[in-house]
Amino acid sequence: KMLGRVLCTVLLVGTFPSPAEASQGHISVILLGATGDLAKKYLWQGLFQLYMDQVSSGHSFTFHGAALAALEPGQRLMFDVLKKLSCPPDQPPNRCAVLKDQFLKLSQYHQLKTAENYTALSREIETLLRQEGLKEAGRIFYFSVPPFAYTEIARHINCSCRPPAGAWLRVVLEKPFGHDLQSAQQLAAELAGFFREEEMYRVDHYLGKQAVAHILPFRDQNRQFLDPIWNQHHVERVEVVLKETVDAKGRTSFYEQYGVIRDVLQNHLTEALMFLIMELPANVSSAHEVVQHKLQAFQSLWGLERSSAVLGQYQAYDSQVQEELQEARGYVSTTPTFAGVLIRSDSLRWEGVPFLLTSGKALDERVGYARVLFKNRAYCTQSGALRDAGHSQCKPKQIIFHFGHGALNTPAVLVSRNLFQPVMPKDSWKEAEARSDLHVFGQPLSDFYMYSPVKERDAYSVLISHIYHGRKDFFITTENLLASWAFWTPLLDSTSRQPPRLYPGGVENQHLLDFEMVSGGLAFTLAEPAELLNPSGQMPSDFRAIQSKFRQSPLVSAWAEDLISQLASDMEEAAARSVARSGQFHLALSGGSSPVVLFQRLARHHYGFPWKHTHVWLVDERCVPLTDSESNFLGLHRHLLQRVRVPYFNIHPMPVHLNRRLCVEEDGGAELYAKDIVALVANASFDLVLLGVGTDGHTASLFPRSENGLEGAPTVVLTESPVKPHQRMSLSLPLINRARQVFVLVLGKGKHDITTLLSRVGHEPRKWPISGVSPSSGQLVWYVDYEALLG
Amino acid sequence: KMLGRVLCTVLLVGTFPSPAEASQGHISVILLGATGDLAKKYLWQGLFQLYMDQVSSGHSFTFHGAALAALEPGQRLMFDVLKKLSCPPDQPPNRCAVLKDQFLKLSQYHQLKTAENYTALSREIETLLRQEGLKEAGRIFYFSVPPFAYTEIARHINCSCRPPAGAWLRVVLEKPFGHDLQSAQQLAAELAGFFREEEMYRVDHYLGKQAVAHILPFRDQNRQFLDPIWNQHHVERVEVVLKETVDAKGRTSFYEQYGVIRDVLQNHLTEALMFLIMELPANVSSAHEVVQHKLQAFQSLWGLERSSAVLGQYQAYDSQVQEELQEARGYVSTTPTFAGVLIRSDSLRWEGVPFLLTSGKALDERVGYARVLFKNRAYCTQSGALRDAGHSQCKPKQIIFHFGHGALNTPAVLVSRNLFQPVMPKDSWKEAEARSDLHVFGQPLSDFYMYSPVKERDAYSVLISHIYHGRKDFFITTENLLASWAFWTPLLDSTSRQPPRLYPGGVENQHLLDFEMVSGGLAFTLAEPAELLNPSGQMPSDFRAIQSKFRQSPLVSAWAEDLISQLASDMEEAAARSVARSGQFHLALSGGSSPVVLFQRLARHHYGFPWKHTHVWLVDERCVPLTDSESNFLGLHRHLLQRVRVPYFNIHPMPVHLNRRLCVEEDGGAELYAKDIVALVANASFDLVLLGVGTDGHTASLFPRSENGLEGAPTVVLTESPVKPHQRMSLSLPLINRARQVFVLVLGKGKHDITTLLSRVGHEPRKWPISGVSPSSGQLVWYVDYEALLG
Repeated sequence: KMLGRVLCTVLLVGTFPSPAEASQGHISVILLGATGDLAKKYLWQGLFQLYMDQVSSGHSFTFHGAALAALEPGQRLMFDVLKKLSCPPDQPPNRCAVLKDQFLKLSQYHQLKTAENYTALSREIETLLRQEGLKEAGRIFYFSVPPFAYTEIARHINCSCRPPAGAWLRVVLEKPFGHDLQSAQQLAAELAGFFREEEMYRVDHYLGKQAVAHILPFRDQNRQFLDPIWNQHHVERVEVVLKETVDAKGRTSFYEQYGVIRDVLQNHLTEALMFLIMELPANVSSAHEVVQHKLQAFQSLWGLERSSAVLGQYQAYDSQVQEELQEARGYVSTTPTFAGVLIRSDSLRWEGVPFLLTSGKALDERVGYARVLFKNRAYCTQSGALRDAGHSQCKPKQIIFHFGHGALNTPAVLVSRNLFQPVMPKDSWKEAEARSDLHVFGQPLSDFYMYSPVKERDAYSVLISHIYHGRKDFFITTENLLASWAFWTPLLDSTSRQPPRLYPGGVENQHLLDFEMVSGGLAFTLAEPAELLNPSGQMPSDFRAIQSKFRQSPLVSAWAEDLISQLASDMEEAAARSVARSGQFHLALSGGSSPVVLFQRLARHHYGFPWKHTHVWLVDERCVPLTDSESNFLGLHRHLLQRVRVPYFNIHPMPVHLNRRLCVEEDGGAELYAKDIVALVANASFDLVLLGVGTDGHTASLFPRSENGLEGAPTVVLTESPVKPHQRMSLSLPLINRARQVFVLVLGKGKHDITTLLSRVGHEPRKWPISGVSPSSGQLVWYVDYEALLG
Repeated sequence: KMLGRVLCTVLLVGTFPSPAEASQGHISVILLGATGDLAKKYLWQGLFQLYMDQVSSGHSFTFHGAALAALEPGQRLMFDVLKKLSCPPDQPPNRCAVLKDQFLKLSQYHQLKTAENYTALSREIETLLRQEGLKEAGRIFYFSVPPFAYTEIARHINCSCRPPAGAWLRVVLEKPFGHDLQSAQQLAAELAGFFREEEMYRVDHYLGKQAVAHILPFRDQNRQFLDPIWNQHHVERVEVVLKETVDAKGRTSFYEQYGVIRDVLQNHLTEALMFLIMELPANVSSAHEVVQHKLQAFQSLWGLERSSAVLGQYQAYDSQVQEELQEARGYVSTTPTFAGVLIRSDSLRWEGVPFLLTSGKALDERVGYARVLFKNRAYCTQSGALRDAGHSQCKPKQIIFHFGHGALNTPAVLVSRNLFQPVMPKDSWKEAEARSDLHVFGQPLSDFYMYSPVKERDAYSVLISHIYHGRKDFFITTENLLASWAFWTPLLDSTSRQPPRLYPGGVENQHLLDFEMVSGGLAFTLAEPAELLNPSGQMPSDFRAIQSKFRQSPLVSAWAEDLISQLASDMEEAAARSVARSGQFHLALSGGSSPVVLFQRLARHHYGFPWKHTHVWLVDERCVPLTDSESNFLGLHRHLLQRVRVPYFNIHPMPVHLNRRLCVEEDGGAELYAKDIVALVANASFDLVLLGVGTDGHTASLFPRSENGLEGAPTVVLTESPVKPHQRMSLSLPLINRARQVFVLVLGKGKHDITTLLSRVGHEPRKWPISGVSPSSGQLVWYVDYEALLG
């Protein structure tokens, strides 16, 4: 009962805290993994800082280090760490020495291995408090242990170590929180079996970094300046960057499972980005409001695709892995140690603004920052040499949240002088001294208002203080975590087998890791070194889809993704040609699921598409309201029309809902659509009709043995589908066959049988309506992916 | 017959040209205004250069200087000029001396005043050629005379001086070509009475400047590099700039009538811009193709508005005008000596790219250039200090056509090294020497590939050579001229009485003439100096709208701009409230011009507006197709709907065009709209109706003494307007009065009378329909600007 005695002494001697002050109750802090690296480096120091800060708060404390090691060696190891705790420069040395002495006395080692160990710990705490007549305020369990140990520990805490009613429980969790969406969901579900959401404090230590933590307060306190410019019209780009000079040596057993995206981008950089781009809550200190706005920001992001990222790996990585993980000499890892990722939002505020996240190991410098770069909207009439430097509107304008390291070597907030002088809280941020010799981001430091913290604080100290104060807004909620994994997992999946570009490391990297935005994605600026040596080698962009014939018409075939990209390019070309010829492009589109990827590709990669001059018609429609989830038009609207700028008048949904009833013969919807086509489309000849094929050989809504639309006049017809909803409206075959071009898209294994069959049969539209597609004076092209073609 | 003798001598002596060589025929050049400034400074030298270049071409030449002065003094004046002709450095001095001697002998002065003078000149030429047995190839008349003399001279040439059949006539005209569209049309019509289009060569001497003339060839020869990047996705902006240090002193009699826009922007800078932005013709040497593409480019430009330009005037200008034009001491001129103009195109290639044209006198430096600045699409992973300078993709990328003067002091073409190494014709352009000390456009010269002409040539020499060769692509056709005036005249009209900003001149201008793009137009960056002196004065943002009552309802009043911003905020608030309550916001909007600013404000400043949940209805509509420029919906579409994201299904234009005919009673459009309202809007009670007021007291399309819609059922009605288009569709007053909120917007002096009247009258909807607006259980708010309220 050494601890009891120590505590007793402290309380009785009465130096700190006096019994009156202690009336707030007692807090027990249990550090699990007390002798691990993180604990050694940051956590004990953070706990000591907490003690120094809160010794007069009215709370009393005990600190319990725990690990798997037995009592004696564990105790020794832990006290070796505690003895080395340092006194911060702003503390009077005497006071600190006294406090350190007390802190050591209040700290005790425990072996926590079995259920009994936990029960014993809990009982010990209760006994002590009873003896001392103290009320229990709460318990903090800090998990500084590998993730595989989480569930076990959590179970024990929940079963045996919960504080009595009236006192709180806070469990602090360290990343990784899963490996992808599924594993994160699983872990979250397990933890949810033991802890309530408000009891869990998931640490992303970036949220404790002073410059990151100040992003939201900065936006809040400078609303008057930022409101007009914090949007797509003024912001050119947002960069969030963490560059490291170290490599993964000695940590490859961890790194090989995670890689740079999971290690840095999914958590640290994403969180910093969210603070920059989320809609600003009315109350930035409300954890609830912040997380709600953050979740909305996640919702507004475009899904990541393979082309959204460039990946690299420093050259020595493979041999480090071979050595540390005892892999074979020839072992090749595809784990990226460098990544640049392009993120876009389709919110009104940020549409079109690129967000670039970058991180890597073995780079030329160590630095972290988030940077908002503004567009130059000015023309400066005086020549550059004669301008007053700082305030010229023609100089770059930026706001930088500098996390640390780099040339500045301090957390800092920088605002270009030609933007505004920011409001900063004087008690925590001070204006930095001018250092005219320094250049940052291509400008002399004197071009900026620069602020650094009055007192530089380690992120863990900050976070431990927030845990103590119950400031959940500095931690990652389950919803937040899963939203982030939901966002990143598709990229991780699609790049998992992609070989990263090798780079030598350090300054030698030169321009090898420079990348550029290219048609909606990213690409390295320089060709691969191998290609540089052999410039005659085929570039990936030289990819050619198989070109051949199918049913006597041209066939384009490839894997689905490449096929879609080829089809989208061909459509843009057709559109451009048509607009050049006639000023308009009449495009008739089919519904269903296959074209969704195509629509997305068109919306996101084809900025040059002449939407303004395009008329969009429907090939067929289901007789449901346009806002029904079954409606072809709704799908088209959601995936394409809402993302591009087709004028309202150029959009022609089928009138299946006239007089607020569905496809009633006498409402004449089909005739009306036919009339509109005749009125607007020259010669009723669409410039391009996009069709699909059903497994039964149907196309448009023309089904086998249909009574309407297979022959006769080029018109619009009502038809019956064998599947629900039965009633349909459709262009007729003769109308389709008037088109200048018809593209048929066939995707997936499920279409293999009908594809095979179609390759053998002739013109039999009554059996297989698709076989009747045969433009009388136009061109037919088949786009069939390998799965449909080859099974 | 001195001339005859001289020519005879030359021909017989046979040095140049031999009779065989002369078989191409004879060319007579008549320079009208032979002793004027332009002739002295450039034209004679250009003609001498032509003679030197073409002496062996097979053509023989005579040169006829002409003016109003009598023979003897005119002759003396002219030969004083000719004696001073200089030999170009690339000519062997001996040869040049001989040629100069011959040139003088081939040149003769004529007094051209009366019809007889012209007849005599023509007879003289004919006689000479008959005597010498020479065939006539053609006659060049160069008009270097004030524009008021054009018609008279043209008439004489046409009547008495045309060459015989088989020989050509070329008349060369110097600007100004009119003062605005109307005067230019008039002058063009007059000239067309005397000359055929192909006979006229309108000079814009910028087209003879080597860097300007090379824009199209450069684009042509570098298609492979430019094709992918010469568009809105890669180009950030285009600048065309002519800065002068001189002022207008000594020329104010001309300048006061023209100003900088007519003097420089309408012609020189516009032409350079057109070369940059026009679609590239297949054959860039085809005058016809070039002019057709140029005209298309003019068609694609947005109309200029008052806010498209910023105007300045150097401070000494007024006193110079007073002195030179004997104006009174207090005379104030509004003629601009500085202009910055923002031009935009809605072509697919250039949509969204700002074109900035700038020119001024009394600035800090003399320089002219056209500059295409590219977007930075790269992220450079290596820190700036460690990058290889020239080729980094993160350095600015630009292409500059440097007309002359400035730090480079030579015509030049510059291309950033990180773009591409351009193809340049080796015989006429050479790579310039590296001058590492020089910085241009914020970069060391070493960042560029720079080319300058092998032989620097004066613009007039170049153009005279082009006249000789019949290269009409270097001259301004009538169509081109009128297209340019049609483009510029609205700006000239709308700014004619606007006081320009005064600037001190030279380096003193500091940032006073810096300007910025602000919501679609331009504005000076700094407040007026007067405002700068009194910074304690109220800032616009401090402004508070007056809140009071009008017709027993709340009144918000302010200057128009503040009023609009208040109204927009109130609308967003209403929308947010409504969406929170019911998940939807049903908004009925009026057409007309007043709401345009409101729509723009909503689109550009209210990113948080819940458009996704907003239904947009029309208050009233004109019976025209939705795509007609008179359509209320079209205005709404252009200024609002195209810029925000309202789902297609939530947009409800009035069905004024059913069955492809306009507001026919039996088509039941009004009933259909009413049915839609009942089906979608709970209780047919709009959440917000925005109304305006006509000077006659009408609102929506409910006019005084209307037979429909003023009372009775809450429905939609067809009405008759006293002004065209007469037929209208409108919500009825009873329907409007069911709304939860009605905002009435009244803007401008023109509405003062009706506003005053309305403040006095009661509920008399048959006289003033607006007085019948009185929501039965909703709220009415008046938004009236100071001009409407106070007159």
